[in-house]
Amino acid sequence: MTDRKEFRDLASPAEAHEVVASLDIAPDPETVPLAECRGRVLAERVDAGIDVPGFDRASMDGYAVRARDTFGADETDPVVLPRVGTVHAGTEPDVDVGAGECVEISTGAVLPGGADAVVPVERTHEADESDGVAFETAVAPGDSVMAAGADVAAGERALGPDTELTPREIGLLSALGVDEVPVRGRPTVGVVSTGDELVRPGEALDHGAGEIHDVNSYTVAAAVEEAGGEAVLYPHAGDDYDELERQLRSAAAECDLVLSSGSTSASAVDVVYRVIEERGDLLLHGVSIKPGKPMLVGRLGGAAYVGLPGYPVSALTIFRTFVAPAIRDAAGRPDPERASVTGRLASAERHGQGRTRLVPVGLVADGAGETLVYPVDKGSGATTSLVEADGVVEMDADTDYLAAGETVTVELFSPAVRPPAVLCVGEDDPLFARALDGVRDPRYLAAGTRTGFRRLRDGLPDVVVASGPDDPGEATAELAAWTREWGLLVPAGNPDDVAGLADLAGSEGRFVNRTTASGLRATFDAALDDAGVDPEEISGYERTVRAHESPARTVADGGADVGLGLRASAAKLGLGFVPLGEERVRVLVNPERREKAGVAALDAALDGLAGLVADLPGYETA
Amino acid sequence: MTDRKEFRDLASPAEAHEVVASLDIAPDPETVPLAECRGRVLAERVDAGIDVPGFDRASMDGYAVRARDTFGADETDPVVLPRVGTVHAGTEPDVDVGAGECVEISTGAVLPGGADAVVPVERTHEADESDGVAFETAVAPGDSVMAAGADVAAGERALGPDTELTPREIGLLSALGVDEVPVRGRPTVGVVSTGDELVRPGEALDHGAGEIHDVNSYTVAAAVEEAGGEAVLYPHAGDDYDELERQLRSAAAECDLVLSSGSTSASAVDVVYRVIEERGDLLLHGVSIKPGKPMLVGRLGGAAYVGLPGYPVSALTIFRTFVAPAIRDAAGRPDPERASVTGRLASAERHGQGRTRLVPVGLVADGAGETLVYPVDKGSGATTSLVEADGVVEMDADTDYLAAGETVTVELFSPAVRPPAVLCVGEDDPLFARALDGVRDPRYLAAGTRTGFRRLRDGLPDVVVASGPDDPGEATAELAAWTREWGLLVPAGNPDDVAGLADLAGSEGRFVNRTTASGLRATFDAALDDAGVDPEEISGYERTVRAHESPARTVADGGADVGLGLRASAAKLGLGFVPLGEERVRVLVNPERREKAGVAALDAALDGLAGLVADLPGYETA
Repeated sequence: MTDRKEFRDLASPAEAHEVVASLDIAPDPETVPLAECRGRVLAERVDAGIDVPGFDRASMDGYAVRARDTFGADETDPVVLPRVGTVHAGTEPDVDVGAGECVEISTGAVLPGGADAVVPVERTHEADESDGVAFETAVAPGDSVMAAGADVAAGERALGPDTELTPREIGLLSALGVDEVPVRGRPTVGVVSTGDELVRPGEALDHGAGEIHDVNSYTVAAAVEEAGGEAVLYPHAGDDYDELERQLRSAAAECDLVLSSGSTSASAVDVVYRVIEERGDLLLHGVSIKPGKPMLVGRLGGAAYVGLPGYPVSALTIFRTFVAPAIRDAAGRPDPERASVTGRLASAERHGQGRTRLVPVGLVADGAGETLVYPVDKGSGATTSLVEADGVVEMDADTDYLAAGETVTVELFSPAVRPPAVLCVGEDDPLFARALDGVRDPRYLAAGTRTGFRRLRDGLPDVVVASGPDDPGEATAELAAWTREWGLLVPAGNPDDVAGLADLAGSEGRFVNRTTASGLRATFDAALDDAGVDPEEISGYERTVRAHESPARTVADGGADVGLGLRASAAKLGLGFVPLGEERVRVLVNPERREKAGVAALDAALDGLAGLVADLPGYETA
Repeated sequence: MTDRKEFRDLASPAEAHEVVASLDIAPDPETVPLAECRGRVLAERVDAGIDVPGFDRASMDGYAVRARDTFGADETDPVVLPRVGTVHAGTEPDVDVGAGECVEISTGAVLPGGADAVVPVERTHEADESDGVAFETAVAPGDSVMAAGADVAAGERALGPDTELTPREIGLLSALGVDEVPVRGRPTVGVVSTGDELVRPGEALDHGAGEIHDVNSYTVAAAVEEAGGEAVLYPHAGDDYDELERQLRSAAAECDLVLSSGSTSASAVDVVYRVIEERGDLLLHGVSIKPGKPMLVGRLGGAAYVGLPGYPVSALTIFRTFVAPAIRDAAGRPDPERASVTGRLASAERHGQGRTRLVPVGLVADGAGETLVYPVDKGSGATTSLVEADGVVEMDADTDYLAAGETVTVELFSPAVRPPAVLCVGEDDPLFARALDGVRDPRYLAAGTRTGFRRLRDGLPDVVVASGPDDPGEATAELAAWTREWGLLVPAGNPDDVAGLADLAGSEGRFVNRTTASGLRATFDAALDDAGVDPEEISGYERTVRAHESPARTVADGGADVGLGLRASAAKLGLGFVPLGEERVRVLVNPERREKAGVAALDAALDGLAGLVADLPGYETA
């Protein structure tokens, strides 16, 4: 392990903000066609170059007149004027309005010479004498006329610099005839992915060689675009110094800012560090914030450089905290509306590391509509934390404990983030997963029945999905229930002729079990007990995997000879199945959440269960 | 005028929503590359196809061991185990961990066979004997190891249908190796612009022929994209039936929805109406909402059709109210977070038309941070209302009067809309306009000094820009002041040898004046009075234009021989100038708004005035 990892003198978050802000990544302004300027930011003030309208314009369908000719007119005693012509929008008047005359005119048309007002057609009627029009009202000069420049006058300030261009501003630019719009440039941000273990999504993984998909490149690139930058993904570089240096240098030549990210492997981080230190200018190394320790800030060639932590949630958190503001600033984007909510902490959180910590948290609305906040910790590097967390709670260095029920402020990952419509915790069940397709914005933490019951005692979930003999230990109402057939999963054709539980004891066959949090595991243990089979005698009993399909996959891959699972999984993966029974799956609702809209939506979706069991052999709905 | 304009039986807003919703404009789902899916919406549930991680993975740098070999170890009495190899991330272990052995391992690497835990390097030290490692702590099986599938297990539900894809979801998709993402299609929306008077921005206008730029096409197209649709602009069609029918039919053949909009001319609307009625299927004509009367809904070929009102604010309002929700729905977008604010009405609003009315309003925060709401009515068809309004207040058919001070709810044009940082009303002055460039999100209603004073008495503006002899009649503080030289604008070389005010009286020369709201006009009138010149004797005295540069433009275009204006305007347009004096321009702050951040920002910007007068001849700052 190199001394790089000792991180002497970490910078404070404030210092880190300062250094990143000092990098100056703002590109030159550019000009874009009117039809493509939405969401861009004006680079300079736009003054009106023309009057709008450019002529005195009728704002009603009716008759152009000299106002004084209508004085005294009313319904009982209308004034009649001969119609001497007609003017349509988009045509040049071929007639003037003389004293005592009128001209038919349509909305938007040019007011003919001589006229100074328009009488709406609704206030007139045809007079008896040929082509005469009877006016039932008097009008004043300027009535129903929009004077030239009344909307915008040439020389007036129309839009200021740094104005964000929405449909409204685009409308005004159109009216002014501006078809080439001067806008702030979008900083070009190169994303370089490093690490021998990373493979681009879409390519196959060699699990044995520890390959994983490159998550950060795509996550960070998307976050760059969200902040107003233009992301450029560079071909994957491994841990080789020369190759990585080439990548970083070409990125630095083409971009305003280069981000490297992706690898958690010490070697890759070492190499990047060396390239910046030897070929560039290292300004900052490590921030006293968790997860900011590995952050690098520097310059390489003409570009700015920031190195992000390797774990996806850490990378995104550090990006949002330190890099996104600099990109928004360079793009001329205003800070997004303050995106934070306060809520009660559902469970205590410990932290004693002597540096500021950004704790990823999830949100759920309780029965009273108050926000509950729960820490999301699926272990270092969990990508599911990305979607299971809604924001972060900042714990400063001196705070080493937050008690349950304490009020905390959550910085949301984006202003649009909302708590899930319904939070479901518990047994991993494929039928329930399908039922959720009928609900908008649900969240399903399939962490096992026991975990569901435990979180329910914390008052966290809206709904618990439960299977097996255990009892919630809380008053709950049942939204729905069904049965699923379970048993032993064996290779196709059941080569070892496994007939039942008794065959597991003392056999050579390697077994793969479910984790103890699983309701199915509890059902299995109860069955072993009834059958008088001693778990100790089952080779592999302690070998557990987490989700409903995992043992089936292990057997299918030849990693085990027998697994605990569902008939549905055996059918899906073409395995043999030794039925041992049926267990009931119950969807239980937190009594304090019955009125929640999301619970009602789930309830409605569960009504359609029968239609979903077709491709799930062994499932039966009541 | 055709009977089209009689609008018998208008539909209710509710009916209109129903009809538009019934059009079904949802396109087929499609597949997009992972790198391009940000902002799209998942078309179907995504289950994990692989375990993440795909192997038991070290989550710390340290040593892979059999946990039981460390039992009993502590700092005082460490357990020493021989290091039999090393495993790096992205490489296949070439060694197993036997009983009483350890293997150096880096974060993210594959746990070698035999090992069941990792001891962090921080809890170890090199032992004296060659290649021995001393362990200062005992660990349990699974410590510092992320088991295969612990993050996501194959077969688990990863993301549900209709999930919006932000950087977070993109991260999870990457981890699962999904590089082609199934997303909801974006409805294709054709925008057909009609009307002989419309000219595309960028092309020159023939004012005499009543030409104006096409505003709605670009405004509506941008609003379509904002709602999640794909806008297609069609070449401009005039009022000719055959040409327009061709345009509409080809748009209908290529799009899910066709919008026509643009023209206010009766003829164009007539023609569109006839095309839909004769060649398509007219479902609705006219909604009892102002400004929805001219709305058309129907079908043409395989596409849906909606006709929007001609005036820009009306078109955008009707689009947002009835069409945008249908586009969002078709694109699978959730409704935007409720975007409305409540505020006090700054001035009374009348309405007696017997149908629901959507009143465009502007917002301003008062001294207490409360929101003040003021109707924006710049007359039919004003495009500036687009940017001067922030949303609409709905007045139902029975409400014909809203008193000042009444609390109203404003539907914002978008959730991002905020009141301007500072609202300035008053004299149109080019130096002040330049100073505003130093303020983010200002709003400047250059409606003249008198208008500024009047709105100040309503308590509306933060700042009034004033010139001329008039007094605000309210206690105000002066933020800044300067003088501008004014006089008579004449053609270059002053052909008529105009020497002063006396030459205006009785002369043949046609004069062009400023509107009475202008402080410069008041200064001019006072000067005439001093000089004993009777306005009646000035030919053109009654002919007024609105903004500071307008008379200069009129003279430059040969539309007048003499105009009232500033030396700065004469210099800019190369005109002759007959100086008559200097007038003081004062920036006055509403006493209740002195503490407002936007006022402070303006104050700071005004400190830089001296640097801005360079290209404004005749200006002097104190």
